[in-house]
Amino acid sequence: MSDATVADPLATPFLQCLIGRIRADDAFGAWERKSDTALLKDYIVTKAERKLIPIIGDPDPDTLSRVEHFYQAVGLAVERATGIMATPMMKMSHEGFGRIVLIAGKLVVFSRTLRDVHRFGFEDLDALASEGTKFAAQAVAMIEAHPDLANA
Amino acid sequence: MSDATVADPLATPFLQCLIGRIRADDAFGAWERKSDTALLKDYIVTKAERKLIPIIGDPDPDTLSRVEHFYQAVGLAVERATGIMATPMMKMSHEGFGRIVLIAGKLVVFSRTLRDVHRFGFEDLDALASEGTKFAAQAVAMIEAHPDLANA
Repeated sequence: MSDATVADPLATPFLQCLIGRIRADDAFGAWERKSDTALLKDYIVTKAERKLIPIIGDPDPDTLSRVEHFYQAVGLAVERATGIMATPMMKMSHEGFGRIVLIAGKLVVFSRTLRDVHRFGFEDLDALASEGTKFAAQAVAMIEAHPDLANA
Repeated sequence: MSDATVADPLATPFLQCLIGRIRADDAFGAWERKSDTALLKDYIVTKAERKLIPIIGDPDPDTLSRVEHFYQAVGLAVERATGIMATPMMKMSHEGFGRIVLIAGKLVVFSRTLRDVHRFGFEDLDALASEGTKFAAQAVAMIEAHPDLANA
């Protein structure tokens, strides 16, 4: 895993995984000329923007798949670092509350309560890269502590 | 855990948990006079009935919540036996395929691929009770093998 504070966030394994995950949905090549930064645009939500997003009702499907892609990318970064696949499972209840886990074999390598998912986003690319990198590092540490269960 | 083949399936801890889970939804007491057997009726799908259920499209919400209640009851039976909560997380993709896991702490105590969920059901109460009891016993064995992670 690379360090959380890097010169170029786009060069982190985590953001490379996230960009790869997003481009995997581009079956018709419509985003081929789009830059990586443009594809990550929706992940950037500044503090001022966040305040303007209402947290009433269920988050829209675009937001939910953005959250899911983020944690899928964490899982891919874990696989790149350890060779062991980490699969996300997300359970949303209502009004933007839920839970996400990443599972490797019989081991829960990452677990987090989600709230205010409507406002999911990061201040800038640095924050996005460092949060994803941090989560992947936590999952990798769990795998290294219990390799037998992670491979089960 | 009681043995898989019992005189009265309704007396198994698993079916008691399932009946309790179903009755928990009865906020207005409409099912108070219904027998336990009547409440479990939808779980009984004979081989002949199963064949008649089409497996095209997504399973309907009633079927999905029946599956979810079944695994919640497995989790409750695990908690009754060990004192440790086992939470189900279900992920359905399309056409009745999916995955269910039961999680205790940092441990995946049970994991199963779901398919043809449209046809979810059991030949009779005995089969229902013994399947749920078997799954709970598997989860309990995992917890007993890794108590530190299950309590994490």
